[in-house]
Amino acid sequence: MSAIEEFNAYRERMNQKMMDAPNNKIMKRIFSLDSLTYQDGALDAKTKEMLGLVASMVLRCDDCIKYHLIKCHELGVTQEEIMEIFGVANLVGGTIVIPHTRRGLEFWEELSEAPKL
Amino acid sequence: MSAIEEFNAYRERMNQKMMDAPNNKIMKRIFSLDSLTYQDGALDAKTKEMLGLVASMVLRCDDCIKYHLIKCHELGVTQEEIMEIFGVANLVGGTIVIPHTRRGLEFWEELSEAPKL
Amino acid sequence: MSAIEEFNAYRERMNQKMMDAPNNKIMKRIFSLDSLTYQDGALDAKTKEMLGLVASMVLRCDDCIKYHLIKCHELGVTQEEIMEIFGVANLVGGTIVIPHTRRGLEFWEELSEAPKL
Amino acid sequence: MSAIEEFNAYRERMNQKMMDAPNNKIMKRIFSLDSLTYQDGALDAKTKEMLGLVASMVLRCDDCIKYHLIKCHELGVTQEEIMEIFGVANLVGGTIVIPHTRRGLEFWEELSEAPKL
Amino acid sequence: MSAIEEFNAYRERMNQKMMDAPNNKIMKRIFSLDSLTYQDGALDAKTKEMLGLVASMVLRCDDCIKYHLIKCHELGVTQEEIMEIFGVANLVGGTIVIPHTRRGLEFWEELSEAPKL
Amino acid sequence: MSAIEEFNAYRERMNQKMMDAPNNKIMKRIFSLDSLTYQDGALDAKTKEMLGLVASMVLRCDDCIKYHLIKCHELGVTQEEIMEIFGVANLVGGTIVIPHTRRGLEFWEELSEAPKL
Repeated sequence: MSAIEEFNAYRERMNQKMMDAPNNKIMKRIFSLDSLTYQDGALDAKTKEMLGLVASMVLRCDDCIKYHLIKCHELGVTQEEIMEIFGVANLVGGTIVIPHTRRGLEFWEELSEAPKL
Repeated sequence: MSAIEEFNAYRERMNQKMMDAPNNKIMKRIFSLDSLTYQDGALDAKTKEMLGLVASMVLRCDDCIKYHLIKCHELGVTQEEIMEIFGVANLVGGTIVIPHTRRGLEFWEELSEAPKL
Repeated sequence: MSAIEEFNAYRERMNQKMMDAPNNKIMKRIFSLDSLTYQDGALDAKTKEMLGLVASMVLRCDDCIKYHLIKCHELGVTQEEIMEIFGVANLVGGTIVIPHTRRGLEFWEELSEAPKL
Repeated sequence: MSAIEEFNAYRERMNQKMMDAPNNKIMKRIFSLDSLTYQDGALDAKTKEMLGLVASMVLRCDDCIKYHLIKCHELGVTQEEIMEIFGVANLVGGTIVIPHTRRGLEFWEELSEAPKL
Repeated sequence: MSAIEEFNAYRERMNQKMMDAPNNKIMKRIFSLDSLTYQDGALDAKTKEMLGLVASMVLRCDDCIKYHLIKCHELGVTQEEIMEIFGVANLVGGTIVIPHTRRGLEFWEELSEAPKL
Repeated sequence: MSAIEEFNAYRERMNQKMMDAPNNKIMKRIFSLDSLTYQDGALDAKTKEMLGLVASMVLRCDDCIKYHLIKCHELGVTQEEIMEIFGVANLVGGTIVIPHTRRGLEFWEELSEAPKL
């Protein structure tokens, strides 16, 4: 199983468990708000996913970075653009972001080589 | 070895090494302060472990989350209560907390299925 | 104007502006989710406000600390309990939380001396 | 002096002191890298300033937020777009971002009412 | 009252209140651990205060920065050394540390000009 | 392959990819600034690596901690000094730093036992 498939499989399995758990009202609303936030509006979905990516990088959440890289890839963000987002994230967030950038670049390469879904 | 056993074994092994290391006075005091903080007082131990859990979630420390989930489980916190703590943590800390919540839920399920010690 | 009144006045004025701004759908939902999260459930409102307080302290947000101190005060949290929450927050979050604790204690004293609304 | 003028005056005065201080080689390079990062490239300057704004919001730095709001305003970002950036920041970063969003909105209003430089 | 005097007066007044508050056992121990940590050991007090300063900067706590600047000044850290600590902090922590560096430099200048106690 | 070799191999492989990627100007400059920052100056390289270590610990970045531990080991920092740096980091950053300290101590032990390069 590729790193992309592994990431998606775990994410979907645990999201399902979250949907089946008792007293999950707040978690459910946060999940639905999450979908709503990244839809086209005054800013298009692509720009919003780039915003989500840079926010995930400076907060240093590997899984969130992977998720937004998948979305950016689907929406046609180029590697040139990704590298410039990496630049902003490492400037604002500092060298502490570098290890996450390495892992992000590795995941992006897998995405670039994977057959389009 | 289950995820719970693995977590506990590594934690105990490294804590022992910390206790054996030279010039560990500050680390030792922090460890003993840690035990003291979660004892019954004006707030009972269960409430304090819930406070420790939500703090660990918004600061996004997987090992700390696991530790407090173990303690919450021992002290009788229910899954309904855990889910509401997850709700507060994800609201205050944002969607950046979701990946830690997935891993926390998975660990909680293991705890719920494990034979009580 | 007391520190409490000043805090509330600014908060209400700016929340109103947020409600009047264009394209505020996500902000509005986050505000309404915020109210929903702290209602009685498997955990009572008082416990949830204490969770909100400790989360705000370790994330070091003075305004969030003030807000949850107001709520804790309304719901009958005692000074003894507040001090123990301060203890958990400073243990988990470190001495970096101390300056926020000083300001929190000062605000709590104002709340304790203010006439109940 | 307006809040905008005050912000700019303090920033310029202290930046000058930083430039005049001894052993400031690293600080100087970071400042020049900062200018370089937000220039047009694969992504245009406007998009990069929006990335800088959302990163500043989730990291909760009021002065950084003000700085990027000034730049966004200069580059023609609309209030509708700003509100959607606020939405992403508060979703990803959580309600802990709300107080910074209130202050950001207040500063944005000043910018909108100020005579264009 | 100078910024240094104001900082010290508020700090001492609130620390006293913390010492007088009920159920303050954990807070008291953290305060005493804080003194213990920065004493001469394998590393001398000066080096430890520099460690405390850089930690406070990357965690972006203005009051903690001021406190460690006072201590560094007392222990003979030079402006050249301070500037290099600022460099490490801004590199590791990113440009988000710049506003705190500006305020830190301003406070350091006051310290340098103040009559030695 | 030891943990040290694995760390270095991944780091070097991905740094190379970063150097080969398009539009990597900002990332390149951050990498070169990173080398420059830790060179001897008013503070010697050893002190600066200790500053980098404590900053990495309170920001809780395992890879950054490993990197600075390698550098500290090369520059002759003793285990007694490392333990005191751990003390400062856990005091300032709180118990949330403990899991990173366990992993850091484990890596340090590997470094101490490895043949000097």
